[in-house]
Amino acid sequence: MTERKLRLGVAGLGRAFSLMLPTLVQDARIEIVAGADPRPEARDRFTQDFAGRAYERVADMCADPAIEAVYVSTPHQFHRENVEAAAAAAKHILCEKPMALSVDDCRSMIETARRARVALVVGHSHSFDAPVRRAREIVESGAVGDLRMMSALNYTDFIYRPRRPEELDTAQGGGVIFNQAPHQVDTLRFIGGGMVKSVRAATGVLDRARRTEGAYTAFLTFENGVGASLTYSGYAHFDSDELVDWINEGGLPKNPDNYGAARRALSQANEADELALKAASNYGGPRYGSDPRVSAKPAQRWHQNFGLLIASCEHADLRPTSKGVLIYGDQERRLEPVPVPPVPRMEVIDELYAAVTEGRAPVHDGAWGLATMEVCFAILQSAREGREIALSHQVPVPPLGTVEG
Amino acid sequence: MTERKLRLGVAGLGRAFSLMLPTLVQDARIEIVAGADPRPEARDRFTQDFAGRAYERVADMCADPAIEAVYVSTPHQFHRENVEAAAAAAKHILCEKPMALSVDDCRSMIETARRARVALVVGHSHSFDAPVRRAREIVESGAVGDLRMMSALNYTDFIYRPRRPEELDTAQGGGVIFNQAPHQVDTLRFIGGGMVKSVRAATGVLDRARRTEGAYTAFLTFENGVGASLTYSGYAHFDSDELVDWINEGGLPKNPDNYGAARRALSQANEADELALKAASNYGGPRYGSDPRVSAKPAQRWHQNFGLLIASCEHADLRPTSKGVLIYGDQERRLEPVPVPPVPRMEVIDELYAAVTEGRAPVHDGAWGLATMEVCFAILQSAREGREIALSHQVPVPPLGTVEG
Ligand SMILES: NC(=O)c1ccc[n+]([C@@H]2O[C@H](COP(=O)([O-])OP(=O)(O)OC[C@H]3O[C@@H](n4cnc5c(N)ncnc54)[C@H](O)[C@@H]3O)[C@@H](O)[C@H]2O)c1
Ligand SMILES: NC(=O)c1ccc[n+]([C@@H]2O[C@H](COP(=O)([O-])OP(=O)(O)OC[C@H]3O[C@@H](n4cnc5c(N)ncnc54)[C@H](O)[C@@H]3O)[C@@H](O)[C@H]2O)c1
Repeated sequence: MTERKLRLGVAGLGRAFSLMLPTLVQDARIEIVAGADPRPEARDRFTQDFAGRAYERVADMCADPAIEAVYVSTPHQFHRENVEAAAAAAKHILCEKPMALSVDDCRSMIETARRARVALVVGHSHSFDAPVRRAREIVESGAVGDLRMMSALNYTDFIYRPRRPEELDTAQGGGVIFNQAPHQVDTLRFIGGGMVKSVRAATGVLDRARRTEGAYTAFLTFENGVGASLTYSGYAHFDSDELVDWINEGGLPKNPDNYGAARRALSQANEADELALKAASNYGGPRYGSDPRVSAKPAQRWHQNFGLLIASCEHADLRPTSKGVLIYGDQERRLEPVPVPPVPRMEVIDELYAAVTEGRAPVHDGAWGLATMEVCFAILQSAREGREIALSHQVPVPPLGTVEG
Repeated sequence: MTERKLRLGVAGLGRAFSLMLPTLVQDARIEIVAGADPRPEARDRFTQDFAGRAYERVADMCADPAIEAVYVSTPHQFHRENVEAAAAAAKHILCEKPMALSVDDCRSMIETARRARVALVVGHSHSFDAPVRRAREIVESGAVGDLRMMSALNYTDFIYRPRRPEELDTAQGGGVIFNQAPHQVDTLRFIGGGMVKSVRAATGVLDRARRTEGAYTAFLTFENGVGASLTYSGYAHFDSDELVDWINEGGLPKNPDNYGAARRALSQANEADELALKAASNYGGPRYGSDPRVSAKPAQRWHQNFGLLIASCEHADLRPTSKGVLIYGDQERRLEPVPVPPVPRMEVIDELYAAVTEGRAPVHDGAWGLATMEVCFAILQSAREGREIALSHQVPVPPLGTVEG
């Protein structure tokens, strides 16, 4: 029995799309049938790569009767507009993180999707990673007692990847609070049960030439009493992949000797050069790689991941890694291997597909995405106002059901 | 020219004393001339090991004209009484951390020492470690721009080391907030400039059989705008020495395969067994090692340290380690080696000796010790009351002067 394919239209054929491409082309449940992007080179490439139609405008693509779901991977500021256009055309939706740039936008998107009776999944984020899910299942099962504390850190070169100007402008959704905190917060919320109570945080703009927050450290309390600390820096100094066996975010080995490469590549670039640099290696650009079906299959691949995370329960510390979940128990320390999905980020399609074909409510739905963004907004607000922020839009993780260990 | 020796009396011949013994016997500036302890076996051993007098009571030792300084290494609850007895006898003082169990006690100790015109040094704590000092010098020098963020974590087996009952009772100074936070907080204060503004924290009692805080995670803001997160767990699950090349707190290699040893050793012990276990291996006990002059010199020794710490400046992340300071700069990553002192914890004697013989104000004086304890008290209070605590007893790190890199 072959599964039916979900006919997908992609809004925004940029970097997020190219990161999802291996998933979209390898997962047999997906068929890419249309794409939308104002960049002609992206549309040209798209019509070469796929037997689908390429549109200049998302609204036009949404009207295409060939598609039944839209993957929204445009810049943040278009997420609301694109999601609502898709819902208006009765298409299901997978919307990239960050869901949107305000609570009001998120609420409107949720409401519009609800009224249109279409599924709304928010992702990819790293809380989809199977070892994170497994860690949550272990917590939920109670097998190692109550969860009491979490600590997470991630140090990357985020700030020095080539950027569009608005990606360096906080008011337009630039910086690590909008772009990286959603991953770390989502993961902590997922393992911690979802219900964050309060946020206290500090943020940092450490490079005067790139005036957006590139670092933060935050303290969360959860309704269930869990306390958590999370730290992120994107300044291309310390690289926390050093702490996780030099496996990178994508689950691939990283060369530890390539220190400072991101900063170096930008060091001579002005704003125009940087845009050109980004465009050249983006989908459709002259430096973009070849067929995603080939390049997506390296020799060795581990789980995608997002730095170091320790979840302390009464009888074990749990540490999701690229290989599975390290369980540091009362008697022994062991790795519980978690099978690497045959297709990367397949977990995202699992949720989308089940929502569309079985009507099963996704874990990462609009309410979930809003709750994660509420924490991110609170990180900015707490740092700005120098005080703790109480939250009011949190939702719990639904029971996952425990798989045998 | 031989330096003059500081004639030291030791109040409390227990574990802290035995950890300082290698320092006290190997540092040529120190001569141990007296000791005080209610335990006869400790006094017997002391008179065997040293040509000094052994007293049952600290007050009697303080009256001994042979001593000019007292090392207070009794349990916390005696620190104030012992410090004030020493000051009353015009002896200089080295007082173990935690300085005392309340702000009032600390203030009284400071005032008493001030009036008696004796030096008061609080330590050992890990902010004495030479790589931590070097990290502070680099921050102070401005060579890598402003410090903006710090993150520290440490996961140990603290809760399962054999304990006296009061060490498991928070009201009497038990648990990690009084016993381990002073190290981590001191280190962050030292690198961050000293002036903590506010504390938000959560604490955890994860083992119902040992009812004191064994874990905490905390968020600090500093007057200079630095934000910091610190996490500690003493529950013998995840061991953060895994992240620092398996070099332990004392600067010695640790065997990664001895998982769960501390918990196992206690698993059959009731309270009396545990006390006996602690006593047996404590100074003077039947299982205490041989001559400290010998056992203190293993083949390889690195700096003492206290887990992972990353200090993020504008142009580098700094990471003090057992080998020196890792500097993750804009262009390159390098280890700045810091010479391992010929005598462990010699840095403590440096401050004490300079204070006594040259009248030089110690960095780790009473006001410094109080400021560190104020943060620790605030961790407990913040967790108990669920709110951020503003501080009012902080003092800055004095300028250290920068050594060439
Ligand atoms: N989950 C992840 O791992 C991940 C990774 C990268 C980006 N993202 C998210 O994906 C989104 C896009 O980021 P990106 O890095 O791909 O940016 P990008 O600039 O690389 O790509 C955006 C694409 O959208 C196109 N576009 C711009 N305006 C449009 C419009 N009005 N309609 C249709 N297309 C339009 C651009 O031409 C470009 O091709 C962001 O929200 C980002 O946070 C997620
Ligand atoms: N800086 C460090 O690395 C470090 C390490 C361990 C302990 N400490 C500190 O040292 C202090 C002692 O802790 P410990 O682990 O050595 O405890 P311990 O129980 O091993 O030793 C305390 C000693 O003091 C003696 N004592 C008890 N009451 C006394 C009194 N009234 N007068 C004189 N002696 C008395 C006990 O008999 C015992 O020998 C604590 O404040 C602790 O925080 C510091």
